[in-house]
Amino acid sequence: MKRHDIAIIGSGPAGLSAAINAKIRNKDLIIFGNNDFSAKLIKAPKINNYLGFNEISGIELKENFQNHINSMGISIINERINNVYAMGDYFALMVNEKMYEAKTVILATGIEYTRPFKGEEQFLGKGVGYCATCDAPLYKGKVVTIIGYNKEAEEEANYVSELASKLYYIPMYTSDYKLNPSIEIIKDRPVEVIGEDKVTKLILSETEIETDGIFVLRDSISPGQLVPGLTIEDNHIKVDRLMKTNINGCFAAGDCIGKPYQYIKAAGEGLIAALGATSYLDSKSRETLK
Amino acid sequence: MKRHDIAIIGSGPAGLSAAINAKIRNKDLIIFGNNDFSAKLIKAPKINNYLGFNEISGIELKENFQNHINSMGISIINERINNVYAMGDYFALMVNEKMYEAKTVILATGIEYTRPFKGEEQFLGKGVGYCATCDAPLYKGKVVTIIGYNKEAEEEANYVSELASKLYYIPMYTSDYKLNPSIEIIKDRPVEVIGEDKVTKLILSETEIETDGIFVLRDSISPGQLVPGLTIEDNHIKVDRLMKTNINGCFAAGDCIGKPYQYIKAAGEGLIAALGATSYLDSKSRETLK
Ligand SMILES: Cc1cc2nc3c(=O)[nH]c(=O)nc-3n(C[C@H](O)[C@H](O)[C@H](O)COP(=O)(O)OP(=O)(O)OC[C@H]3O[C@@H](n4cnc5c(N)ncnc54)[C@H](O)[C@@H]3O)c2cc1C
Ligand SMILES: Cc1cc2nc3c(=O)[nH]c(=O)nc-3n(C[C@H](O)[C@H](O)[C@H](O)COP(=O)(O)OP(=O)(O)OC[C@H]3O[C@@H](n4cnc5c(N)ncnc54)[C@H](O)[C@@H]3O)c2cc1C
Repeated sequence: MKRHDIAIIGSGPAGLSAAINAKIRNKDLIIFGNNDFSAKLIKAPKINNYLGFNEISGIELKENFQNHINSMGISIINERINNVYAMGDYFALMVNEKMYEAKTVILATGIEYTRPFKGEEQFLGKGVGYCATCDAPLYKGKVVTIIGYNKEAEEEANYVSELASKLYYIPMYTSDYKLNPSIEIIKDRPVEVIGEDKVTKLILSETEIETDGIFVLRDSISPGQLVPGLTIEDNHIKVDRLMKTNINGCFAAGDCIGKPYQYIKAAGEGLIAALGATSYLDSKSRETLK
Repeated sequence: MKRHDIAIIGSGPAGLSAAINAKIRNKDLIIFGNNDFSAKLIKAPKINNYLGFNEISGIELKENFQNHINSMGISIINERINNVYAMGDYFALMVNEKMYEAKTVILATGIEYTRPFKGEEQFLGKGVGYCATCDAPLYKGKVVTIIGYNKEAEEEANYVSELASKLYYIPMYTSDYKLNPSIEIIKDRPVEVIGEDKVTKLILSETEIETDGIFVLRDSISPGQLVPGLTIEDNHIKVDRLMKTNINGCFAAGDCIGKPYQYIKAAGEGLIAALGATSYLDSKSRETLK
């Protein structure tokens, strides 16, 4: 399997800035995210605090970023990383059953503004999960509920519905849902996860459902879930001034490391993280030469 | 005297980014620097790592910055701050004998790449200085040497030459020098400052001169000299993740706080410093209301 120098997770300003700087330093990089880069970019009506671009829309700024990475031959892998495992001298990045390998990782996943539901954290791993396809085998013949924040969640729902005895899908967005006919769509607002040792019920604002498992598929999963062993402080990834996390070879940048939540702060940190990963790689290869 | 909300010292990407963000937050700001913004900007032949601008020259990037600040009604005060004094609830910023006042200060002075001359630090305050006009009265009727790194140093030389018995000017750049006829220009490379209790001599690579005082007028003076009491660590201003220095109300950003020395890192930090100054001001005014 190909082992990349640097894997960047996230395609917002932090991830993109990391990517161009890794490329300039001649590193073999791979960047995961989506073709729109970031919902937080394309949804901004008017941006006036990114030095050099005045009164620009999010869409226009996105186009400038696009031209920049295109002209450097960088393209984004449209995949969502579910888990990153530190394997000693490399990292394994999982996309459901598929695996990628890299010597260093830069976390640029942004931050989820929505709060966890009542009971969600208490039952995490006890019926509550964030990757339905990963845990699907555990729910063969059982009742599963998926709370989906985007269209990608529909695919996971379809996949799990083939194993589960019953699947409830609670969309947190409006769209043309492309779901298997067996799936029951519930348009209501989740309020609380209930259970004893394990989840038994999900209470919604107007109804409640008995369920064995609940998957909450938000736009981004929390960094602590993404990378087991990562030190988190005040809900953000803990880094030093050079964007190093507590895990050797793992760096982080952007909203996921703390406030203020702003584009150029994220881009500046993405650069620092890329240079950090670069010098980590260079020092490793000097060690090998010795 | 008018007391500004925020005084920004330095007009590179860090200072400019701080300025636009302070303006957006409706603060009354003043920014000191020069019309070219930064020599490190206009001298860059090709920049490809400022996300959003690919393969741009320093001059072109400067023009984009110019348009941005112009359209926000920000203009740069073309003056060099010699000293900043923390006065408790405000700061006094000195430009020779002139004074400005501000409630908060953002240091965005960049960093001087040249190393001190041999003996320079040893004789600092004992004949070696960094502000010729400030210390001129001490050298009435004495021999003074000025090592100048830019044209602005010529003005200081002219001023001091009217008091000193003799003035040597050692230009570290080539230009049409506009100096009083009494000034002796020496085109040679300074090597070492010599003395016992006080400076007595400057050794150059091909000659030496007897002198009572030596002023080294570089593009920027070190932050520790600029702001007495500022904590310096490894030659950079010590800040926390929110760009706070050890002095209440004093923030710093850009090259002066540490590596990597890069535009977008400086701009990202300038933003953080401006938001830090803003919330400091807001918390102060809440205190006053109580
Ligand atoms: C409406 C709106 C307007 C805003 N306006 C401004 C403004 O005017 N000025 C300003 O400075 N800031 C503004 N912001 C804030 C700014 O959007 C954020 O601070 C910035 O986008 C953070 O960049 P980032 O790269 O850290 O993360 P994000 O931009 O959030 O990007 C992270 C990306 O990573 C992807 N991702 C996450 N997890 C994974 C994974 N496991 N696998 C693959 N991909 C993953 C996400 O889907 C996302 O695309 C605005 C935000 C919003 C919502
Ligand atoms: C030739 C060259 C090419 C470069 N190319 C790149 C590149 O391609 N990409 C990249 O990311 N980086 C590049 N850099 C590095 C980049 O220039 C610096 O990191 C960046 O300019 C730092 O910004 P700053 O705002 O911290 O400080 P500076 O840009 O150094 O600006 C500080 C400003 O403050 C002024 N100042 C200082 N003290 C005072 C005072 N007491 N009173 C008033 N004004 C004061 C200075 O005169 C200066 O104008 C390059 C540097 C050079 C020299």
